[in-house]
Amino acid sequence: MTHRRKIIVHIATSADGYIARLDGSLDWLTSRPAPEGFYGLPEFSRSVDAKIIGRKTFDLSVQMGAHFSANDAHYVFSRRPPPASVPAGVEFVTQSIVAFTERVRKDAGKNIWLMGGGEIIGAFLDEGAIDEFIISVVPTFIGEGIPLIAQRHREVPLRLRSARPFPDGVVQLHYDVATKRGARVTSPSRRPPGSASKRSSSRRRTI
Amino acid sequence: MTHRRKIIVHIATSADGYIARLDGSLDWLTSRPAPEGFYGLPEFSRSVDAKIIGRKTFDLSVQMGAHFSANDAHYVFSRRPPPASVPAGVEFVTQSIVAFTERVRKDAGKNIWLMGGGEIIGAFLDEGAIDEFIISVVPTFIGEGIPLIAQRHREVPLRLRSARPFPDGVVQLHYDVATKRGARVTSPSRRPPGSASKRSSSRRRTI
Repeated sequence: MTHRRKIIVHIATSADGYIARLDGSLDWLTSRPAPEGFYGLPEFSRSVDAKIIGRKTFDLSVQMGAHFSANDAHYVFSRRPPPASVPAGVEFVTQSIVAFTERVRKDAGKNIWLMGGGEIIGAFLDEGAIDEFIISVVPTFIGEGIPLIAQRHREVPLRLRSARPFPDGVVQLHYDVATKRGARVTSPSRRPPGSASKRSSSRRRTI
Repeated sequence: MTHRRKIIVHIATSADGYIARLDGSLDWLTSRPAPEGFYGLPEFSRSVDAKIIGRKTFDLSVQMGAHFSANDAHYVFSRRPPPASVPAGVEFVTQSIVAFTERVRKDAGKNIWLMGGGEIIGAFLDEGAIDEFIISVVPTFIGEGIPLIAQRHREVPLRLRSARPFPDGVVQLHYDVATKRGARVTSPSRRPPGSASKRSSSRRRTI
């Protein structure tokens, strides 16, 4: 098999960068009329056969009566023990992210959808385990909420693959993670000496 | 005069929605090589003749040796008294945002650039005083930082005017604020009865 399985985040954010309100609410997202084609999500779904979710997202999904599709593997990451009863098709992962990623990348299969939330996205990102981000930016400011990536100092360069506007104002930004392992290099190594301070001063000096 | 002066936010954010690191640092922005055309900023600058900044941004700019261009009016909003010496061309505003906005919109002139930071943007947004946002999304995750808009619960619908990708991966999102005064209406009034719960359940039930 020559295809290397990719781990891809495909998620919607508000125009101010949140994946949900502080209480987990998605009212700003689910209240939108469904556009034809649903932002390419059906095609994307067919390109994956496994999904990764964090424990909070799993618990919330179960609470909301979620059904885990039989076609896909579902990997749940959690520091806590799994519940007494785990739905069919769901595996609680006890491996490290690095060991897990090596395992699933060795298996034949389609790509893997890292669904969220922000904590598991942050943890995978910090291990250099994410290949791509597809972010559907919804044209609404919600003001506060759960960030796309759990917060800590980072420096992760991305490469834009495409920016696709939809008629209802959603813009889908598709990025490759430019550097994976070691993504948190500081920027001085990437720029010619002196350029930062020059740019910085020319940008800041006149207002 | 038929032209109504607009108040426009034109600002860069990281791909995760921050306008600066927590310490105010713009290293992720200023270290980038300047592209030809500089993301349309020179043209935008010529379309405005006044700038609004918050007090923290003003103080930081002065600390960094900023020079306030003589061509433009500079309005600084602050709850604290102005410093003993105010640079030429800078006015500390003591009016409310509503009164100020009415005043400057009555004056003849070009558009007005609301430069930031997040607190003054939030305050103007909550008064329905912002017409447009032009957000240049830089292809870098910085992980944590100062949000575009000071945090509180909001519901501000936007209308996408354009999404413009640049060769270096920056994407400029240009929005009209769809509702101004009273922007924080809750979404049920905007959608057909029952559509939210239907959409919500169909989106959430199968994972």
